[in-house]
Amino acid sequence: MRFDPASLTYDERGLIPAIAQDHLTGEVLMLAWMNGDAVRRTLESGRVTYWSRSRQAFWVKGETSGHVQSLVEMRVDCDRDCLLLRVDQTGPACHTNRRSCFFTAMTPGGEVEILSPEG
Amino acid sequence: MRFDPASLTYDERGLIPAIAQDHLTGEVLMLAWMNGDAVRRTLESGRVTYWSRSRQAFWVKGETSGHVQSLVEMRVDCDRDCLLLRVDQTGPACHTNRRSCFFTAMTPGGEVEILSPEG
Repeated sequence: MRFDPASLTYDERGLIPAIAQDHLTGEVLMLAWMNGDAVRRTLESGRVTYWSRSRQAFWVKGETSGHVQSLVEMRVDCDRDCLLLRVDQTGPACHTNRRSCFFTAMTPGGEVEILSPEG
Repeated sequence: MRFDPASLTYDERGLIPAIAQDHLTGEVLMLAWMNGDAVRRTLESGRVTYWSRSRQAFWVKGETSGHVQSLVEMRVDCDRDCLLLRVDQTGPACHTNRRSCFFTAMTPGGEVEILSPEG
């Protein structure tokens, strides 16, 4: 692998935010965090692997739920401090069983749920 | 305004990441940061306003470049610790004059530039 995860810019916790986007529809599914090893594992396995800040452990997306994210393409931004993951998402990306975690819109009248749980 | 920015979850610096997405094409343009006042200003003015971590000041996107972001819709994720901004982007969003900051893809052969600077 010619890409070196050490060439990215991590925050003081050693993490970089990663945006997961459906590669077909363009829908933004979620944002989670990676450390250098998670970036390496994701690129090597093709299975998106985050770093869970709450559990302080690797988080292979969908390992228990089956809602895996297969990496189609990884992109990095101009400052090299954010990743965009173009993914093939199986089932819902959100733990609430919705396709995307961004299911709440702020409107002048208040918050509105714009996406229902699947199944 | 019925939405209270204090209902969001901010990090230890008082910031929340905000993903800007072209509301028509679905293209992810950039990720930047907001504090509670930046969220409030953005919702009240309709002009996307970030908090610049390097300058420690409000950053009205496009104020000097003219490449403004007009807010179409603001969404929040399930954990209330990330925002998705659906925007109408004038010109390039990136300071490199590219439409998106995510113009570098990691391929097995190395990094590839997938987006050229505009005009």
